[in-house]
Amino acid sequence: MDGTGTGRLEAFSDGVFAIAATLLILEVGVDTSRGDLGGQLTHIWPAYLAYATTFLIIGIIWINHHHCVSLIGRVDRPFLFVNLLLLLTVSFMPFPTKLVAQYLQKPDERQAVIAYAVTMVTMACIYNVWWRYARHHRRLIAEHVSDGSLEAVDRAFNPGVPLYALVLAVAFVSPLGSVIMTLFIAVFYLPSAALFERGT
Amino acid sequence: MDGTGTGRLEAFSDGVFAIAATLLILEVGVDTSRGDLGGQLTHIWPAYLAYATTFLIIGIIWINHHHCVSLIGRVDRPFLFVNLLLLLTVSFMPFPTKLVAQYLQKPDERQAVIAYAVTMVTMACIYNVWWRYARHHRRLIAEHVSDGSLEAVDRAFNPGVPLYALVLAVAFVSPLGSVIMTLFIAVFYLPSAALFERGT
Amino acid sequence: MDGTGTGRLEAFSDGVFAIAATLLILEVGVDTSRGDLGGQLTHIWPAYLAYATTFLIIGIIWINHHHCVSLIGRVDRPFLFVNLLLLLTVSFMPFPTKLVAQYLQKPDERQAVIAYAVTMVTMACIYNVWWRYARHHRRLIAEHVSDGSLEAVDRAFNPGVPLYALVLAVAFVSPLGSVIMTLFIAVFYLPSAALFERGT
Amino acid sequence: MDGTGTGRLEAFSDGVFAIAATLLILEVGVDTSRGDLGGQLTHIWPAYLAYATTFLIIGIIWINHHHCVSLIGRVDRPFLFVNLLLLLTVSFMPFPTKLVAQYLQKPDERQAVIAYAVTMVTMACIYNVWWRYARHHRRLIAEHVSDGSLEAVDRAFNPGVPLYALVLAVAFVSPLGSVIMTLFIAVFYLPSAALFERGT
Repeated sequence: MDGTGTGRLEAFSDGVFAIAATLLILEVGVDTSRGDLGGQLTHIWPAYLAYATTFLIIGIIWINHHHCVSLIGRVDRPFLFVNLLLLLTVSFMPFPTKLVAQYLQKPDERQAVIAYAVTMVTMACIYNVWWRYARHHRRLIAEHVSDGSLEAVDRAFNPGVPLYALVLAVAFVSPLGSVIMTLFIAVFYLPSAALFERGT
Repeated sequence: MDGTGTGRLEAFSDGVFAIAATLLILEVGVDTSRGDLGGQLTHIWPAYLAYATTFLIIGIIWINHHHCVSLIGRVDRPFLFVNLLLLLTVSFMPFPTKLVAQYLQKPDERQAVIAYAVTMVTMACIYNVWWRYARHHRRLIAEHVSDGSLEAVDRAFNPGVPLYALVLAVAFVSPLGSVIMTLFIAVFYLPSAALFERGT
Repeated sequence: MDGTGTGRLEAFSDGVFAIAATLLILEVGVDTSRGDLGGQLTHIWPAYLAYATTFLIIGIIWINHHHCVSLIGRVDRPFLFVNLLLLLTVSFMPFPTKLVAQYLQKPDERQAVIAYAVTMVTMACIYNVWWRYARHHRRLIAEHVSDGSLEAVDRAFNPGVPLYALVLAVAFVSPLGSVIMTLFIAVFYLPSAALFERGT
Repeated sequence: MDGTGTGRLEAFSDGVFAIAATLLILEVGVDTSRGDLGGQLTHIWPAYLAYATTFLIIGIIWINHHHCVSLIGRVDRPFLFVNLLLLLTVSFMPFPTKLVAQYLQKPDERQAVIAYAVTMVTMACIYNVWWRYARHHRRLIAEHVSDGSLEAVDRAFNPGVPLYALVLAVAFVSPLGSVIMTLFIAVFYLPSAALFERGT
């Protein structure tokens, strides 16, 4: 029964991750009444940047989620609720992503990127609560999982909140810099993460 | 074969739940021609409220659905049809949610929130029929399931229709109050529900 | 390996069915600049009719697909390709559904409903090819499946094309009648279908 | 654990493929303010062509992905990352598809089709890296898989990049020809592909 529990948790979570990531492209478009398509396709590069950054972020959240759930042996009600809050935040991401696509390099870019970074900080906080709730005194951890595996995940989660807090701070000074930093976190996080050092 | 039956029932249902929840964000946006992004991001709080409320409602429907299906050993044609009606109603939710986001705190807010509450009452009624059909004389219940488990689910389903009927009544007096009440139902329902007291 | 084959076939097909059904609601909306929300919510009943009709049609395609695949033991390349054409047609449905929602009871309603009915006829034809390809000389049928089970499915598939052809014919005379007839097919098809009389 | 690994890889990938394919139809629509629906439905044939072409391309990527993953016994971090890049590209496809639908047979059609073809070339390159990474020295290949099966997949992947490069070259001369060529690749690729000659 517990196995079924994590099975459906995964199914719904995977669904939300996949849909949130794929919906991002719906917001990318050109103004068909303006002409000069070639110029417009270059000019909307903030939309490409925002799309790729959020897509990779969601992909990495998915990969981490996948790994953590593989360490979890059972779920309880509070955990399902925190998981729902995590999905709510991920599912919200297309909105600030659209703001970045629409406003980057324009007068209100700072507010747009701050909204984006606040979403990322919120996600990182909820994701940490999610993991720490399951991991605390091995509350939901499967028996066969070694302490080393858990510590590897801890090491992967620890930099999340500080890094995104830095992204938020940078947003006040350089909106473009903040978005590029988020992209770098996504690109470099996966290969360097200790996340997959499975209980070696 | 029956196991396969509930397997695909879950797959399609999970898909609809995840998509309906994730589509909600598509309706949230700002007017890019207006400027003052910071002000607009604050001003559209009814959109955030409507988004979070419906997302949590769908999430809780999903968690309950997941638990109930785990008690069900086989499906038949009428049950699949009622399940389809339930999904039709859940899949409809992004529309009244958009209405609440667009109209709350504006002249026509009452009609918008009534449409929202009517959708919730309809969902609660269909969901009750769905459960009672499966549970009546243990029609579709798996053999290993104890009566105590079924009674726990009954206790969780019983307050649904009256609560949403109250939400609908409040909508006539205070549209905002009605939406906030719906959010509270979602937030407090899960932790307090007897739903997961599995046959103790 | 073959089981994996139908497993992923189901996963992708379920995904397309669930998404196509859930996207339908995105096209339902009101004109926020017009006021009189209560009147508008009544006035857009063709959108509700089109939404419910297509949702149920897709749901029934899904249930039938689910049952047929449970009889299938292996897949081959032509079958995957026909399945892809079936999904292409189902995934197309939100477009003619939107046309019905936009044009019913308006000057161009006939063209809109003809487009809708042509889509349904096309779907029914491809679905028949899909089933007949798998069933012919038990090409892809699992060994344990009785001939009686296959004949029950045949009886369920036989009326599909003629019924939708009639729906198309009616569209020329009475567009509204044609849509209502499609809804009736959906509502009455499932309970009366011989589809689930599993090899009795 | 490894099996779980490819299981969730498939779930997320299937989700993205199914959603990207199904979202395509959202961009197809008519101008309700113009009248002459019958004429418009004929006039927007580029939208149908773009829809069908991309839907089939994504479907074939899915079928190939499905087959390749069935040969893979375990996943590692770089592979997950390349898979994410592949999904990012597939998920991007609705945007250039919309451009083709909007601009084909209009002044800026060349730029639109070039954007479409560049996306296809990029996808083909990443897909080749994806396969070659897994296949090199049988890095991620399951033990039971014969070298013959791998060579069959190689033969299926080899023409991908050159074919799409040709599509891109044709886009400069004949945009419409380029899109039709892409459709032909999709329609003829599957039945002729050596992909499913499983280790004969």
